[in-house]
Amino acid sequence: MKNYTTLKDIPNISELIKEAILLKMNPFEYSKLGQHKTVVMLFFNSSLRTRLSTEKAAKNLGMDVMILNVNDAWNLEFEDGTVMNVDKSEHIKEAAQVISQYADMIAVRAFPSLQDKAKDESEYILNSFKKYATVPIVNMESATAHPLQALADAITISELTEKKTPKVVLSWAPHPKALPQAVANSFIEMMQHLDVDFCITHPEGYELNTEITQNTPINYNQEAALQDADFVYVKNWSSYNDYGKILNQDAKWMMTKEKLGKAKFMHCLPVRRNVVVEDAVLDGNQSVVIQQANNRTFAAQVVLKQLLENL
Amino acid sequence: MKNYTTLKDIPNISELIKEAILLKMNPFEYSKLGQHKTVVMLFFNSSLRTRLSTEKAAKNLGMDVMILNVNDAWNLEFEDGTVMNVDKSEHIKEAAQVISQYADMIAVRAFPSLQDKAKDESEYILNSFKKYATVPIVNMESATAHPLQALADAITISELTEKKTPKVVLSWAPHPKALPQAVANSFIEMMQHLDVDFCITHPEGYELNTEITQNTPINYNQEAALQDADFVYVKNWSSYNDYGKILNQDAKWMMTKEKLGKAKFMHCLPVRRNVVVEDAVLDGNQSVVIQQANNRTFAAQVVLKQLLENL
Amino acid sequence: MKNYTTLKDIPNISELIKEAILLKMNPFEYSKLGQHKTVVMLFFNSSLRTRLSTEKAAKNLGMDVMILNVNDAWNLEFEDGTVMNVDKSEHIKEAAQVISQYADMIAVRAFPSLQDKAKDESEYILNSFKKYATVPIVNMESATAHPLQALADAITISELTEKKTPKVVLSWAPHPKALPQAVANSFIEMMQHLDVDFCITHPEGYELNTEITQNTPINYNQEAALQDADFVYVKNWSSYNDYGKILNQDAKWMMTKEKLGKAKFMHCLPVRRNVVVEDAVLDGNQSVVIQQANNRTFAAQVVLKQLLENL
Repeated sequence: MKNYTTLKDIPNISELIKEAILLKMNPFEYSKLGQHKTVVMLFFNSSLRTRLSTEKAAKNLGMDVMILNVNDAWNLEFEDGTVMNVDKSEHIKEAAQVISQYADMIAVRAFPSLQDKAKDESEYILNSFKKYATVPIVNMESATAHPLQALADAITISELTEKKTPKVVLSWAPHPKALPQAVANSFIEMMQHLDVDFCITHPEGYELNTEITQNTPINYNQEAALQDADFVYVKNWSSYNDYGKILNQDAKWMMTKEKLGKAKFMHCLPVRRNVVVEDAVLDGNQSVVIQQANNRTFAAQVVLKQLLENL
Repeated sequence: MKNYTTLKDIPNISELIKEAILLKMNPFEYSKLGQHKTVVMLFFNSSLRTRLSTEKAAKNLGMDVMILNVNDAWNLEFEDGTVMNVDKSEHIKEAAQVISQYADMIAVRAFPSLQDKAKDESEYILNSFKKYATVPIVNMESATAHPLQALADAITISELTEKKTPKVVLSWAPHPKALPQAVANSFIEMMQHLDVDFCITHPEGYELNTEITQNTPINYNQEAALQDADFVYVKNWSSYNDYGKILNQDAKWMMTKEKLGKAKFMHCLPVRRNVVVEDAVLDGNQSVVIQQANNRTFAAQVVLKQLLENL
Repeated sequence: MKNYTTLKDIPNISELIKEAILLKMNPFEYSKLGQHKTVVMLFFNSSLRTRLSTEKAAKNLGMDVMILNVNDAWNLEFEDGTVMNVDKSEHIKEAAQVISQYADMIAVRAFPSLQDKAKDESEYILNSFKKYATVPIVNMESATAHPLQALADAITISELTEKKTPKVVLSWAPHPKALPQAVANSFIEMMQHLDVDFCITHPEGYELNTEITQNTPINYNQEAALQDADFVYVKNWSSYNDYGKILNQDAKWMMTKEKLGKAKFMHCLPVRRNVVVEDAVLDGNQSVVIQQANNRTFAAQVVLKQLLENL
């Protein structure tokens, strides 16, 4: 592995999941591997789980961690050829090359605008770092993808499944704010690579990028989709076609204990209680969200480990 | 020790003070104890001394430290059963459990509102972490208590006293802003457990919670109270009965060299010069505020050490 | 070395440059030297390169690093004798002494106001820390000087020069914002101590402090100044005489590939493309700005190393 910006960077997903589970059993086994190696974590947006789990993962490997909230420094210019006489103090070309001088790898979090679809889909922040940095880049959630989350999700399903081919459902939920599609996108791509019976359910108008959903079945009838599910992953996203818009806030799409049946409940967190999912689910023993959050550490750790081994 | 949220968590105060003084003589003696252990420090409010001294203490013990300014992440919901469709992105139930996945202990700073007395006294932030986290909680100053400060204060008095039973006076001082009662509360509780001759002096109307002051003598006459004092701890607090209000800004309550007599001057810092205390005191050799601030490290270190030993 | 607040603190510049180049070849050779030593980095202003390179340097030496954005804590009072009843919560006298309890050295970044020349030139922030702290102080860019940058610049010229006495030109450039004179000041002072043929070119009105420029030739004709240059250091600064003002934004002063001739292009970064310098220069192989930025680590590292050796 040379970078970890999309799930396509993983050479063998099932091998990686196995290795992550081994790391979880012995988190400090490679605590010398990262000695004298530094990851710079750059946040264009706020973070709790990603920030703490990635820092923990790096330290478990013996790495040094330097954290920079980019907006505390200054605005970066990403366009080529501009006359930088307004509000941008530094061009990404310099910033990425310079940070590469101080880092053995760079982890970047940068959300989409949800305003300019073409710009968001270009992944200009993440890809500019990939283009100009001279060290590996790790995606800590970009405009369209959250591959560390998807890896943690896959680890969690692998740990918990009692069947060879469990039924997994991604179920849209209402939310008062317009949210990115990144988590849903990466979860879908991950499920397409695992031995699972996978489908998506959401209201009409919430279709995601068809280049990502491909042949995955989509069912507008939530109840039918949830039938006999083993894992239900609940997540809101804003409309992809009517880009960034909230088309539906119908509380009928909220996940309930009744709808969940016997399935395990998954969510990437943070989650709005009694909007996305009712208390009874989160407080019940079918919820695996804390285990999922814990697996963020080992998803990050296995990725950092592979990047370190390829430095 | 399983948590350090109030002074009641200390099994034996004089033993703890002795151990802190030993740590001060050899701060790196236990530098392997915290290996592969992480403290997450969560700040709902800003900090200088608490932030630096607690981080230093953790590193002296070989721990990893991860620091999160919570308000840089997002608003947490603390109420049960709410429909989270407004401004709160995550419930404390998830946040506390999740952070526990990445931490071996969690240290929390959260000031009172000074508006809603019942809510402040419920210590809902600190106690929610205690309730939902699965790792020990350290109080880095909560709505009503600052037990790390009180422990540093006790260490300082132990180091400096030339008498078996010194006279210690807590003297209120004026301040332009409404300040919490936390430092005063914890200092009083600490003094009640030490072998000191302790009294409080403040203007009428500044009586603290009687459940805390108990039988400690209160004297409205500052001059009489200060008579023959060995240690004078000066501190402003806002009214407890007329909750959060400033009732008095009378400069006559400012500490002066003349009033101080031969006593040592103590203050938790930060201190407003020539409002709370005149320059001549702070710049004179009876002030022990820097030694007090230094002891914050060893107060935190002895607490973290005991928590580590009980993990 | 007891502090590093100005270039005058360097006992022997050419020795220090040589030592920095040796450290660059083997950055972890002294990774035990800083064990159990802590540098507190205080930022009154934002930073990217200085923040990351100084943190990296400290960690290369095995030091612990604690970073505090001072403005996230509270306002400090720097005046003596004031009645602190308005917006300042803590006096520098206490702050500097207290931080010294938690640190083995303190690094400070504090830009000028560019409003009050006398106050800026007094270097009241940096010098107050130097006066009241009880540990060494490192200047991470102050009102009038940036000695870590100048040391990195000198290292870069030493590495790259093919002549015993290269010609070095400091060339002013336009900029939309009023910038400090600190980088230019320290670069000039550094060049005056090296074996270089040095001159300055800028528009009339941009003369710097004559106590700094001394006998260094100043040429208002940029083209003439640049003739046969080996190194061209481009940098904007606001007017020193008409203090903090922008007198000229003439794009003719922008550095171009044509003007540069065969010289190496230097800049401290961040740099505004096509305002300070055209793309063709930064994207061409005569630009050494990334190497310069990399040398920030070894400038900081050699300084921290000497300070550690003198603790």
